[in-house]
Amino acid sequence: MGKQDKAWHQSPHETLRVRDGFSITDFDFAGTPGFTGDKKDGKHLLKARGTHLSDLQEQLFAEGRADGTRSVLLVLQGMDTAGKGGIVRHVLGMVDPQGVQHHSFGVPTQKERSHHYLWRIEKALPSAGKIGVFDRSHYEDVLVVRVHELVPPDVWGKRYDEINAWEQRRIDEGTRIIKCALMVSPQEQLERLSQRLDRPDKHWKFNPGDIDERGYWDAYMEAYQAVFDRCSPDAAPWYAIPADRKWFARMAVTELLAATLEAMNLEWPAADFDVDAQKARVSALRK
Amino acid sequence: MGKQDKAWHQSPHETLRVRDGFSITDFDFAGTPGFTGDKKDGKHLLKARGTHLSDLQEQLFAEGRADGTRSVLLVLQGMDTAGKGGIVRHVLGMVDPQGVQHHSFGVPTQKERSHHYLWRIEKALPSAGKIGVFDRSHYEDVLVVRVHELVPPDVWGKRYDEINAWEQRRIDEGTRIIKCALMVSPQEQLERLSQRLDRPDKHWKFNPGDIDERGYWDAYMEAYQAVFDRCSPDAAPWYAIPADRKWFARMAVTELLAATLEAMNLEWPAADFDVDAQKARVSALRK
Repeated sequence: MGKQDKAWHQSPHETLRVRDGFSITDFDFAGTPGFTGDKKDGKHLLKARGTHLSDLQEQLFAEGRADGTRSVLLVLQGMDTAGKGGIVRHVLGMVDPQGVQHHSFGVPTQKERSHHYLWRIEKALPSAGKIGVFDRSHYEDVLVVRVHELVPPDVWGKRYDEINAWEQRRIDEGTRIIKCALMVSPQEQLERLSQRLDRPDKHWKFNPGDIDERGYWDAYMEAYQAVFDRCSPDAAPWYAIPADRKWFARMAVTELLAATLEAMNLEWPAADFDVDAQKARVSALRK
Repeated sequence: MGKQDKAWHQSPHETLRVRDGFSITDFDFAGTPGFTGDKKDGKHLLKARGTHLSDLQEQLFAEGRADGTRSVLLVLQGMDTAGKGGIVRHVLGMVDPQGVQHHSFGVPTQKERSHHYLWRIEKALPSAGKIGVFDRSHYEDVLVVRVHELVPPDVWGKRYDEINAWEQRRIDEGTRIIKCALMVSPQEQLERLSQRLDRPDKHWKFNPGDIDERGYWDAYMEAYQAVFDRCSPDAAPWYAIPADRKWFARMAVTELLAATLEAMNLEWPAADFDVDAQKARVSALRK
């Protein structure tokens, strides 16, 4: 923890949390707020904290097996190339796959469209003891839907309150929600799109539509600002994560996850059987 | 590959595969067939092959995104403490969680029992581009079900052929099936149960019923032998994996997975757009 104390002079729970007055206009996409180290320090710390995160995750999993009801949900949002996939691979990849329930939300299928927009979200919620990860989420229903006017303003306009109420119910049921917006700058996005085009092994990640979407950048930022303004209650605030430096974003999400699990005061479940009696049975079998 | 060639003098696809004449009675639960190295060599190799496996998995994932239909299904069976969970954590934990669909099959729920026994299995099949992992599987319906006579013999007796036919359909649809039986000895199981009792952080993994089940060891081995004898067609053979040495079992499953993916001749999907035209769009945006 010594190394960590040195590197994080302020917790990302404090520095990255969206509060009243937060404005994307003033956001430093390449910043490393609260962190004094460099990329190398960040990578070392990621590994150390990953081990810690993995230990905490196992305790959460054990609690779920022992009739616990708590779970964690990590919501990832961000523009194309912001690094959502990298978070899954490099952060969630540090914990036991048994304990992770990952779900990517793409363009809704016909069946999904025939239901309320929260229907497919609810189906993908993590079960007790699990860390759920949403790569995109119900927030698309007030982001891409708003930007492209896929439904009228009076329809999406009601969704902010509805989402807050829905999330509160999940929290009441025992799910901690961590909402991370990976904030990449338009300049960095262009670099990343360009890299994808330069490498044949990255072509599958490229979609010409991604360039079209850049044309709506300002509208997207306005939609993100509305999400931040209207959906950051104390129980489930947004964290705006500078994402131009991938190592920082990964380290920050790891820290947010670890701190959330720490705050749950997880303990190994007590035996629901007589330990000595079972030890005696094992001893008898040894003879 | 030099190190690997030295360590594996014979592929686990050959040495561990269940063939005609295989008998559990002669099985060496602590063996390391085909491998000349020790635990340290094994751990090094696991890491190296894990990186390779992770690369292959990304190609499989990319293929799935590009309208591919192929997938991989790893079926894990084994007595309690055989190390199924450890395979998930230490082998599948080496690849991107986005590409893994993990499912544990416990005692069927009331809803599951109201359906055909393959119903819940079918629902959990990996989608295109994914590696599915079954921690226990449809084979429980001819293992625990047979041992405890949960259904009459004429009912479970028909299941072997039914399972073969069902698996063949999955293979025809593009799923490679790797069936791994983690074979732990009764002596080693007792050690592991004892360790779980000694450590309060492992109590949640202990179930007094596990000791009761030991009483049916021979019946289980008979049921496993029947599974091996009747459900090892060339297209989806069983691999009997010595599991008394955890490091060996993990390394062997990694190797089986990697070799399976290698044999799929995966390639990065070709761009379905005009790469030069898109590069020109990006260049124009740079100005």
